[in-house]
Amino acid sequence: MAAASISSPSPTSSSALKHAFSDRVPIRSILCLPDGGASLSGQRVRVGGWVKTGRKQGSGSFAFLEVSDGTCPANLQVIVDASVADLGSLVQTGTCVQLEGTLKEPPEGTKQKIELRVEEVLHVGPVDPAKYPLPKTKLTLEFLRDVVHLRPKTNTISAIARIRNALAYATHTFFQNHGFLYIHTPIITTSDCEGAGEMFQVTTLISEADRLEKELVKNPPPSESEVEAARLVVKEKGEAVAQLKAAKASKTDITEAVAVLSKAKESFSKLEERFKQKPGIPQKDGKIDYGVDFFARQAFLTVSGQLQVETFACAVSSVYTFGPTFRAENSHTSRHLAEFWMVEPEIAFADLKDDMNCAEAYVKFLCKWLLDNCFDDMEFMAKNYDKGCVDRLRMVASTPFERVSYTEAVDILIEAVKGGKQFENKVEWGIDLASEHERFLTEVKYQKPVIVYNYPKGIKAFYMRLNDDNKTVAAMDVLVPKVGELIGGSQREERYENIRDRILEMGLPTDPYEWYLDLRRYGTVKHSGFGLGFERMILFATGMDNIRDVIPFPRYPGRADL
Amino acid sequence: MAAASISSPSPTSSSALKHAFSDRVPIRSILCLPDGGASLSGQRVRVGGWVKTGRKQGSGSFAFLEVSDGTCPANLQVIVDASVADLGSLVQTGTCVQLEGTLKEPPEGTKQKIELRVEEVLHVGPVDPAKYPLPKTKLTLEFLRDVVHLRPKTNTISAIARIRNALAYATHTFFQNHGFLYIHTPIITTSDCEGAGEMFQVTTLISEADRLEKELVKNPPPSESEVEAARLVVKEKGEAVAQLKAAKASKTDITEAVAVLSKAKESFSKLEERFKQKPGIPQKDGKIDYGVDFFARQAFLTVSGQLQVETFACAVSSVYTFGPTFRAENSHTSRHLAEFWMVEPEIAFADLKDDMNCAEAYVKFLCKWLLDNCFDDMEFMAKNYDKGCVDRLRMVASTPFERVSYTEAVDILIEAVKGGKQFENKVEWGIDLASEHERFLTEVKYQKPVIVYNYPKGIKAFYMRLNDDNKTVAAMDVLVPKVGELIGGSQREERYENIRDRILEMGLPTDPYEWYLDLRRYGTVKHSGFGLGFERMILFATGMDNIRDVIPFPRYPGRADL
Repeated sequence: MAAASISSPSPTSSSALKHAFSDRVPIRSILCLPDGGASLSGQRVRVGGWVKTGRKQGSGSFAFLEVSDGTCPANLQVIVDASVADLGSLVQTGTCVQLEGTLKEPPEGTKQKIELRVEEVLHVGPVDPAKYPLPKTKLTLEFLRDVVHLRPKTNTISAIARIRNALAYATHTFFQNHGFLYIHTPIITTSDCEGAGEMFQVTTLISEADRLEKELVKNPPPSESEVEAARLVVKEKGEAVAQLKAAKASKTDITEAVAVLSKAKESFSKLEERFKQKPGIPQKDGKIDYGVDFFARQAFLTVSGQLQVETFACAVSSVYTFGPTFRAENSHTSRHLAEFWMVEPEIAFADLKDDMNCAEAYVKFLCKWLLDNCFDDMEFMAKNYDKGCVDRLRMVASTPFERVSYTEAVDILIEAVKGGKQFENKVEWGIDLASEHERFLTEVKYQKPVIVYNYPKGIKAFYMRLNDDNKTVAAMDVLVPKVGELIGGSQREERYENIRDRILEMGLPTDPYEWYLDLRRYGTVKHSGFGLGFERMILFATGMDNIRDVIPFPRYPGRADL
Repeated sequence: MAAASISSPSPTSSSALKHAFSDRVPIRSILCLPDGGASLSGQRVRVGGWVKTGRKQGSGSFAFLEVSDGTCPANLQVIVDASVADLGSLVQTGTCVQLEGTLKEPPEGTKQKIELRVEEVLHVGPVDPAKYPLPKTKLTLEFLRDVVHLRPKTNTISAIARIRNALAYATHTFFQNHGFLYIHTPIITTSDCEGAGEMFQVTTLISEADRLEKELVKNPPPSESEVEAARLVVKEKGEAVAQLKAAKASKTDITEAVAVLSKAKESFSKLEERFKQKPGIPQKDGKIDYGVDFFARQAFLTVSGQLQVETFACAVSSVYTFGPTFRAENSHTSRHLAEFWMVEPEIAFADLKDDMNCAEAYVKFLCKWLLDNCFDDMEFMAKNYDKGCVDRLRMVASTPFERVSYTEAVDILIEAVKGGKQFENKVEWGIDLASEHERFLTEVKYQKPVIVYNYPKGIKAFYMRLNDDNKTVAAMDVLVPKVGELIGGSQREERYENIRDRILEMGLPTDPYEWYLDLRRYGTVKHSGFGLGFERMILFATGMDNIRDVIPFPRYPGRADL
């Protein structure tokens, strides 16, 4: 994209190349030109970045540096003369440098199309190689998870950051182009969407209890007799007022006595309140008293914005949410995070077929966007992690997705078993498809994305629309090679009686869903939507294996660094 | 923008107008054409939406409906004949309708440029007017906060939703155009950025304790004597093994006895573990044992992504975060939320001046974007809430921001006081500027946005870069009419010794900041950034007074609906 913004490479002045708000030309603006930067030869530029590798040459008379500023996978080759700067401090991996010099075409036969001859070293942020946790040698992804604050400096994590960024902007662009409104659904919620219960609680009760405990140590609560004494004072002062009134005393005297009484009352009620304060989390009827928690009730981190975003779909028609969601699952697999990002569109006047069309168009758009805007990063991933990942994007971007009903899918799996295919999980109508089944369908049977629709109602959520067969619901999952399920969606049940019955049938209380039922009570509309696990999409695109490597700051049981 | 996508209005086929993934033509695609839709006369279209007002006419022979689908502030005028549908069910406010018909130019002299003559009513989602909480009469914003799930159906809340959406996409577009990468900083954090402490705690300890309590009721723990008995069994079985070994018994006998012993050990250790289980939140040394909490330590909701996003700025140069942030402040004002959204860019190789340039360009871009893309919604806000809001956007988009140092600003305020201006808060060098001071500078003195920079170090955070005067830091605030402070930012302290000293000086522990110090230890770089309160920007743009009305689902003390 940067290349596009400087699409006519000559005549380019270095001020046109310069980053608008920083003192450097992004290396991407040089190396990602169609000619690899050759046309910029002769230009004087200022660049900044970090040394990937450095070596002194010519008996120490000059040094070669490979400098990256993280704007593209390629490094800028830099030559510094010993007369310009102390080379020893420049060549260490990780050193930050800001350099000014002239771009020159390198001698023929070298890989680079352009290199920088440095005339001035403006800044050096040194590194002590004995202490630096990221030496030049190749480091494992596991190791990098322990230095989550430094790992963006590596080629892999920075390439993933650029791909993630591209997918996020592509997401917004896709939905904006189609007239969807981006809605910020709440992170803190008092609704449990899935009824699953694996939610993080959000509270100030514990910190309030800590605060109170410290406060009570510093300033101990009154004893019972102190409170009793204060109560007696109130009684006494009250009697004094009564006597004065009975004796028809002067207004001034009575006013004075009343003032004394209210002071006594105030100090009594303060004492009494402090007397009642107990260290620990406040209880009521043997249970935690959430009435005094921040939101005056139990609050949790959201597991999905779907139910809430439906309130906007039922008013402004086409909406989506894109935000963090949470599961307090004690899961240590390479596919689960406690905090992850979801994209959830919701469309009014849309049925399941519209929903599938939207999901397919969206996934294709993402794939095409990466090919168009992140090709160099995709090549890096293909070279280093998954040689098929570029072809996979091309295939998904260009191939119509297969669509099969759940019943057909189960028949296909049963046929496969008859043909000798072995699955760990038994295949029969009514099961929830396991990952092995999903991957068989998309990777072996069809070798392309597959949308499975119309699932048995028993394995799906209450809000999915019941089909006329009374056995299945209008749900759909998009399965893709490499990760299996990428998207789950459904047409929502818009008929009031049906959805109320489904809630009761599943043994859920209706009270927490009254607001959701209101959407069906007042001006109900046919609507559909889906959720895409954003990190799954990145795993699919990059071919990475572990979800902890495709989110900047992974959270999982036992770990929430930074 | 929808208008742009169908910029050549003739020949337009209704399929070109149609929403890609739903069974309707968005009303925006009709009414937001430059000619108000007149050129579409004769087109057969299908639309869907909700009835704003409806009335029967001609002794009940036909009805006029004003229909909105939330895609633009204007309603489509619709005429339905009594022969086509039961008019009584259609005219109620809030009714959902899906209609097919032909667009026609209305009789001359009417406001509309186009209206729909209905030929078929495809769907009616009825409303019982006796129960519907949103009658046609004008409702207060306070009232609407109690029906947060229905308020998107109102003109005001849907207009704000479209403006909010536009500002969000403008934000991404601005930073993407300038080569910034969008980084998802964590929501759950174990770092307290501001050291302020007003954070929500995230925990599974309470739900785990609840689970355990239920479990212990269902399956009571063993008694001490049961545990003791099991211990004796282990001892006995151990002795049996020892005896067999001493007696050089057969291998089979010994193996069998060893198996019995391990079974006894296993059942003893299970009993012992269950015996140790205590209801309530687990304690250790008289304190809550966070070692058994989900993340094995105390975790909180983030108050800012700045420190974390700096790890990416120090690797990939230009980054931004845009996400929810949280304050557990017991604040009931119209300017505070417990959950709100922040935009936080961070730029490597950038100083305070670059930072100010970026902030100014960003705010101008947002204003211009709204004028270009949301003009009809802005006109709605101007008409109904703040007649100056469109002019304010124009002024900010086109006027260079005034830049004054904190010291100059204080001098100006002191001069104003001398001239008779009264402030509630005393003005002297060293104070934190109060809202009244900020608004005086931007609304009275300069009547345009003002950037105040170089604040006293005593009132600013530890990470801000110390200026050479040793008294001030390279901080800046952008002040705008209507809301005062819109942006706060700074150049970050990149010098290791300086920042370590500042942490110590402020009495903070260095341990939690070691990772942050590492960014200065290894390849440190000059960098700057700022934070924009996204809801403040919406207040500024729309002229709304209460922050609870510009976020879809407001969270504040005592309230977290849905």
